[in-house]
Amino acid sequence: MKPVKVGICGLGTVGSGAFNVLTRNAQEITRRVGCEIIVEQIGARRDNPNCMTTTTNITRDIFEVAVNPDIDIVVELIGGYEVALKLVLLAIENGKHVVTANKALIAEHGNEIFAAAQKHNVTVAFESAVAGGIPIIKALREGLAGNKINNITGIINGTGNFILSEMQEKGRDFADVLAEAQALGYAEADPTFDVEGIDAAHKLTILASIAYGVPLQFAKAYTEGISKVTSEDVKFADELGYRIKHLGIARRTEQGIELRVHPTMIAKQTLLANVNGVMNAVVVDSDAVGQTLHYGAGAGDEATGSAVIADIIDIARNIQGSSAIAPLGFQNDALANTEILAMNQTKTGYYLHLKAAEKPGVLAEVTKILGQSDINIEAIVQKESDEDYVPVILLTQQVVEAQMNQAITAIEALDCILGDVTRIRVEH
Amino acid sequence: MKPVKVGICGLGTVGSGAFNVLTRNAQEITRRVGCEIIVEQIGARRDNPNCMTTTTNITRDIFEVAVNPDIDIVVELIGGYEVALKLVLLAIENGKHVVTANKALIAEHGNEIFAAAQKHNVTVAFESAVAGGIPIIKALREGLAGNKINNITGIINGTGNFILSEMQEKGRDFADVLAEAQALGYAEADPTFDVEGIDAAHKLTILASIAYGVPLQFAKAYTEGISKVTSEDVKFADELGYRIKHLGIARRTEQGIELRVHPTMIAKQTLLANVNGVMNAVVVDSDAVGQTLHYGAGAGDEATGSAVIADIIDIARNIQGSSAIAPLGFQNDALANTEILAMNQTKTGYYLHLKAAEKPGVLAEVTKILGQSDINIEAIVQKESDEDYVPVILLTQQVVEAQMNQAITAIEALDCILGDVTRIRVEH
Repeated sequence: MKPVKVGICGLGTVGSGAFNVLTRNAQEITRRVGCEIIVEQIGARRDNPNCMTTTTNITRDIFEVAVNPDIDIVVELIGGYEVALKLVLLAIENGKHVVTANKALIAEHGNEIFAAAQKHNVTVAFESAVAGGIPIIKALREGLAGNKINNITGIINGTGNFILSEMQEKGRDFADVLAEAQALGYAEADPTFDVEGIDAAHKLTILASIAYGVPLQFAKAYTEGISKVTSEDVKFADELGYRIKHLGIARRTEQGIELRVHPTMIAKQTLLANVNGVMNAVVVDSDAVGQTLHYGAGAGDEATGSAVIADIIDIARNIQGSSAIAPLGFQNDALANTEILAMNQTKTGYYLHLKAAEKPGVLAEVTKILGQSDINIEAIVQKESDEDYVPVILLTQQVVEAQMNQAITAIEALDCILGDVTRIRVEH
Repeated sequence: MKPVKVGICGLGTVGSGAFNVLTRNAQEITRRVGCEIIVEQIGARRDNPNCMTTTTNITRDIFEVAVNPDIDIVVELIGGYEVALKLVLLAIENGKHVVTANKALIAEHGNEIFAAAQKHNVTVAFESAVAGGIPIIKALREGLAGNKINNITGIINGTGNFILSEMQEKGRDFADVLAEAQALGYAEADPTFDVEGIDAAHKLTILASIAYGVPLQFAKAYTEGISKVTSEDVKFADELGYRIKHLGIARRTEQGIELRVHPTMIAKQTLLANVNGVMNAVVVDSDAVGQTLHYGAGAGDEATGSAVIADIIDIARNIQGSSAIAPLGFQNDALANTEILAMNQTKTGYYLHLKAAEKPGVLAEVTKILGQSDINIEAIVQKESDEDYVPVILLTQQVVEAQMNQAITAIEALDCILGDVTRIRVEH
């Protein structure tokens, strides 16, 4: 099959992440798609030392990429509005498919861009614009396409969630955590877009249009930031059984669609309330399937790059005409004969529950056997019991199952151990 | 656009769920796909009173559906092995695309079915076979297609998870909860498939083949059930900071692929440990995006039906040649002009934080204002403070924002209230 050729514009965090993953996983991706995906050209004002590119054709003029006749897909990762819009429209006019991670561009100029794409019969894809690496746009457009979608509730800005999580866990103040987030690189020098909810409102606008099939209307989204949330309110909320999260909420009502970003209290036992740090999660409430939750990294070079590449792969599959994806997602003739291991070759931690006779030296005998089998013990606890034995609980580090089988057989053969050893595997 | 015609074989729980959702959401689905999806024929040994069908052409001979020249897509929802396999192969030989929810069939006969589908150039889709309504197969094949997938860890059997959740929360015994699950209809009269992990191993086999691009090899999956998990071990695990979950685990190692279903201890603060009741969740660990979690209903008529319909829609989009899905998932010319509500028209609960002067009658004045605005109070708490005011926290029931704005203005005008009222919206 003929390779599909990509031009990447912008070589910042996401650009270099996407390039590096495309390069590293080239073989895996070709097995899935059935053809190579080649980065034909990169347009960037400067090189990025994090980008593994060495020989790829690099131009300082991004517009060159948009008109390059060899390129099938233009990937816009420069961000911002004006130049990005100009670039995307030029690429579309030149018959290129477009992949973009630019939520601001799509939320504010998407209607215009989609009209141009329809006119020129090309695809515009933007999975990476919302919730980074979580395939939430695909879930809404395809995976849940049989549903009438009622509500979307999402933690869709990692910076804000990091700040609120720290305020919650450590009782710190907003300004204090913001300064740390800036030092860690989680927050920009000017954090307005993140902490005042504009970034989240861009993403919510996109999700709502996909959920309800309405044009993008960013101007109508209500946006309230988290800069006024105090550690006192975080504490009071906690006492009442709630967490404060910065949520984007879209809701279908009989009167119309609610579209709002604001600090929100949610019950602390919900999964969403337990999404902490820079992670993102989106809860979708639909009429047939009920609630689904989609969780993952909302930002980061390779996480966002993952979504960029998913869009590229979708388009490459369409270009090839192999839009019906192979049943296992890999081409049938590209399946591998990687060995499936027998259970005794697998490796996990173990919880062992022994019934020990009430006499001295039992633990010494047991730990000796484990030591001889090279099994490291993480914890030993003796429990109380009304029976005529002492329950002993052991947690071990990871070990190959065959070794553990041997050790258990030896332990069960001890006079001081009654009955079978209970074994439950432990995963970290 | 010409309608796409579907034949449904099997009118049990999932069959009637899929039919009902297809019927109820016909308009929404047509807006998305660009053509009608019509149930042309149903093959079922008997009617199902839960199914809203009245006039649809019903045959008692399911094989009639597989050879019906008017039908594009045959949906196999009869379950089991032999007849289902015969039906699916006959449909494929007759050039029909196939959608199936039958995990046992795919896990054990998938390789043969996929070869036949490739030969006849038709699609076989089975999103509903794993984790019910969660679009996890699409996520693996498409959304995460740029990644090298390392591990998959899933709660993929609702019955087992219900039993373990009840054992955990209420200290009950396995046999006791199983009997209740059977009474509630969560567990079959013969629960072997669910509680001994066979059902989970079928699903895990499918997920692993999609993750790693290897043929389906159900016979090599290790399967251990939960029938020997005791309430004592659940308690000991809890004391050590763990929950016991029945997990399906697939892991890529240098030696090969681990493929195993067994009771597993995981740290109780992880999201997966907090997936309770009949819900399913799958954690995917990939090289670029890191961890993503996909949560939702793993069973149920409409939840599973949702995934069946997603597959039908995918195929319908391909049949039409509109494989490049419209940017918003709805056809551009089918976007609606549903109103986006202004913020003061939206409805939520509220947390109000007031600074009250230390004098009698303040609460009476505040609650009077809320009562006059028809705002129901859920809770009032007075907090202690070192300042010269008393923090008062109010939780209200849902009310339209305009009413709340009015009430807050009135409260702030009270002499006994100092400064601004803090308002945080509450969602349930």
